[in-house]
Amino acid sequence: MLKTDLNSDIGEGYGDWSKGDDAALMEVITSANIACGFHAGDPDVMAETMRLAVANGVGIGAHPGFADLKGFGRRRLALSHEEIANMVTYQLGAAQAMARAAGGEVRHLKLHGALANMASEDAGLARVCYEAALKVQPDIVIMVLAATAMEQVVRELDCAWAGEIFADRAYNDNATLVDRSQPGAVLHDPEAITTRILAMLQEGAIIAESGKRIPCKIDTICVHGDTAGALAMTTGLRAGLEARGVEIASL
Amino acid sequence: MLKTDLNSDIGEGYGDWSKGDDAALMEVITSANIACGFHAGDPDVMAETMRLAVANGVGIGAHPGFADLKGFGRRRLALSHEEIANMVTYQLGAAQAMARAAGGEVRHLKLHGALANMASEDAGLARVCYEAALKVQPDIVIMVLAATAMEQVVRELDCAWAGEIFADRAYNDNATLVDRSQPGAVLHDPEAITTRILAMLQEGAIIAESGKRIPCKIDTICVHGDTAGALAMTTGLRAGLEARGVEIASL
Amino acid sequence: MLKTDLNSDIGEGYGDWSKGDDAALMEVITSANIACGFHAGDPDVMAETMRLAVANGVGIGAHPGFADLKGFGRRRLALSHEEIANMVTYQLGAAQAMARAAGGEVRHLKLHGALANMASEDAGLARVCYEAALKVQPDIVIMVLAATAMEQVVRELDCAWAGEIFADRAYNDNATLVDRSQPGAVLHDPEAITTRILAMLQEGAIIAESGKRIPCKIDTICVHGDTAGALAMTTGLRAGLEARGVEIASL
Amino acid sequence: MLKTDLNSDIGEGYGDWSKGDDAALMEVITSANIACGFHAGDPDVMAETMRLAVANGVGIGAHPGFADLKGFGRRRLALSHEEIANMVTYQLGAAQAMARAAGGEVRHLKLHGALANMASEDAGLARVCYEAALKVQPDIVIMVLAATAMEQVVRELDCAWAGEIFADRAYNDNATLVDRSQPGAVLHDPEAITTRILAMLQEGAIIAESGKRIPCKIDTICVHGDTAGALAMTTGLRAGLEARGVEIASL
Repeated sequence: MLKTDLNSDIGEGYGDWSKGDDAALMEVITSANIACGFHAGDPDVMAETMRLAVANGVGIGAHPGFADLKGFGRRRLALSHEEIANMVTYQLGAAQAMARAAGGEVRHLKLHGALANMASEDAGLARVCYEAALKVQPDIVIMVLAATAMEQVVRELDCAWAGEIFADRAYNDNATLVDRSQPGAVLHDPEAITTRILAMLQEGAIIAESGKRIPCKIDTICVHGDTAGALAMTTGLRAGLEARGVEIASL
Repeated sequence: MLKTDLNSDIGEGYGDWSKGDDAALMEVITSANIACGFHAGDPDVMAETMRLAVANGVGIGAHPGFADLKGFGRRRLALSHEEIANMVTYQLGAAQAMARAAGGEVRHLKLHGALANMASEDAGLARVCYEAALKVQPDIVIMVLAATAMEQVVRELDCAWAGEIFADRAYNDNATLVDRSQPGAVLHDPEAITTRILAMLQEGAIIAESGKRIPCKIDTICVHGDTAGALAMTTGLRAGLEARGVEIASL
Repeated sequence: MLKTDLNSDIGEGYGDWSKGDDAALMEVITSANIACGFHAGDPDVMAETMRLAVANGVGIGAHPGFADLKGFGRRRLALSHEEIANMVTYQLGAAQAMARAAGGEVRHLKLHGALANMASEDAGLARVCYEAALKVQPDIVIMVLAATAMEQVVRELDCAWAGEIFADRAYNDNATLVDRSQPGAVLHDPEAITTRILAMLQEGAIIAESGKRIPCKIDTICVHGDTAGALAMTTGLRAGLEARGVEIASL
Repeated sequence: MLKTDLNSDIGEGYGDWSKGDDAALMEVITSANIACGFHAGDPDVMAETMRLAVANGVGIGAHPGFADLKGFGRRRLALSHEEIANMVTYQLGAAQAMARAAGGEVRHLKLHGALANMASEDAGLARVCYEAALKVQPDIVIMVLAATAMEQVVRELDCAWAGEIFADRAYNDNATLVDRSQPGAVLHDPEAITTRILAMLQEGAIIAESGKRIPCKIDTICVHGDTAGALAMTTGLRAGLEARGVEIASL
């Protein structure tokens, strides 16, 4: 029987501002990547998000990003490896304590935004981030973009890890995402998405736009809930996969 | 044989700005209250401060404060108990991870600035802070201002704690500090300070300006290093106490 | 012929976060109180908001608040009068430049959130804020809550000013707002609101819940657009007033 | 008679943190580049710095930088031209108001840190910054690094401008600075610095390390005061130039 985890970025509000319907999304996903206060999230938003995750039995993930509220962690910053390590360490520690206060535990780590983009291209940077996290929590599950430099690093580190694919993005032949500016880069139809994801799970491979298969370990599917449309797509994907016999379960 | 710990706030820089000679101060104190990034400190400053603490065998303390860089955590903010708890939890978690990354462990917690002032007057608030910390780290040592509401709370919580007095401040008969605007409120002469602290340690009591004794548990003495003068005073106090047979040792 | 201005807080996003449909609201109001980057707004949000105001012929107002993104400027901070003056000066200057860059000019000033609440109760504080603004822009129109300490101050300063009432809030006999926790404190029905505002405009007085009349200069009505419901209410109020012959025009 | 202006970055504290002895530096320089709150400075620091500038008859300059307190504006950020323009506009407006409140006026603009480095290499970026400033204040004097892309832009814009050289840095043959990692890149001896600056003023040219002359308009010399040594060097340079008959006067 096929099985997968559904993960989403969540807890991305700050103070009086919010993004998406976290309570609704928590009922659909099985892993939550929770912003740690640097690009989004603050202690109060984190506390509420952790509480929701515990209440819904959703796996708690630390989702560290650059200290850049205005840019939402999406702007690349040229920091030293040491600064990157410190920033991952700090955010993971904060997430651990917030999870514990909510009666849960951090189980996985996923890098956010520009930091993730940079680490997916740069094995040295990915290693810095992951080693920082493993030093704080040796049994943490590292969530990596399947078939990228990130995967190479976790294999070398021989740590617990999960391979991730995107539900709604077309892939190039080298396992990178088709640029959003290209037609067909972002998929919207839940039925088509379900069919495509099912095929990838069955084949154990990313299926590129060209039809090329890129074999990889697929443990989790990245979904969204920051707009009503995204939430509906995610709900549709989950229902579609379950209807086709895929078990949706936390890592 | 008399014994005491010397604690100081430290790691109070931010980015390119610094305060005091942390490296020199670390050689004199036995407990470091390390800023956690909200009122001062950032992940890089914290990493360096933790490293110095480990290298000097100085006990690592989390020193949470209000999220107020501009006010250095010295402005009172009217937050809810829940917000206060979240903010303590977050900062303690961050400090734990940073300490671990430096090869150490957080051992104690001391509240900073306005948060400390408020908690010393308000047992309910002190309890919120301490319970938040104990939930994250049940064996943490809570550093309290001797003979204040803080002490009452840790006695009720039946947790590990340490009573603190100030090296350089005169006390009122009710164990509060003489207001800085009053003559004699702040002591400067290392010799006089040493004599006075020695007497307090011997008697197990705060000796108020009036001569009144306020019996209390004295485990640690708060010293400073943010100016050249403060550092000299601290060095003088340590030498003076050691010369009079007081052992200076970490909690 | 009766005439009034409709003002609303606007430009209250930050980075990737937004609040309300500013473009739609700009088509209904005649004065925009634009966040200046301290409690909300950033240079990019301000630029877009200024552009919208100019395009819609809406009067541009600087809307300074406390430097408290997390608390959205709604938390009272105990700053010195000098700090308050500096913070108003800074934000007004920033708003002037942003307005100029968009081809407009700042015309009015309205205090935001906790700063406004404090100034409505404390004439000394209101005076500090208004004198700071007048020093930078002597012909600025100060928007004050009618019949409060704010009004007393602008009368003393003999500056240009506009008296403001709330569209959707019930008033106590002393011209303060009925606490939100009380039944009837917040009005929701556009028709009822229109009737009530029309009566106030006709009588030149705040009509308290009790029926008591508090004569005052009413130049502008504070409306909202941060939710779909608020925007609909505001649109309904404007249409209702215009249908009853009230001219809606900028100050 | 030779004449020059001495300019320095100043007002670079934030909240409780400070850098250098601004009061002493203000007595030596004739132009102050005042941080505007994004990379350093806050409304209170700015107010005090503006007050000092007015009291000492020092020309007030807006010194905008990236919104990056932690990095002190020294980290390159990849912002859009529109974002850069907005950020210059905002900071200049704030500085204008703060200057006015102190009884002065902003007279010049100098870009800070990474923004300056980027603009000295990229005429397009320099133009965006300068056009933003000129839109807000058409008569502002733009301070540019002599013989760089910045100079090319101000010549094209046909605006008021001043050419700047560094007192203490060796130059390459292309008018860029010798990298700090190279021996001799930073000069320390006030006497040698004075002789060299005098020669450049007399020849109207940057004299590179190689001896090559790069003719340029030299209106102002960039000096420092952030350390005791820097302040002494600056004082020595001023005294040395005056002793050799150079008039030190504001732009």
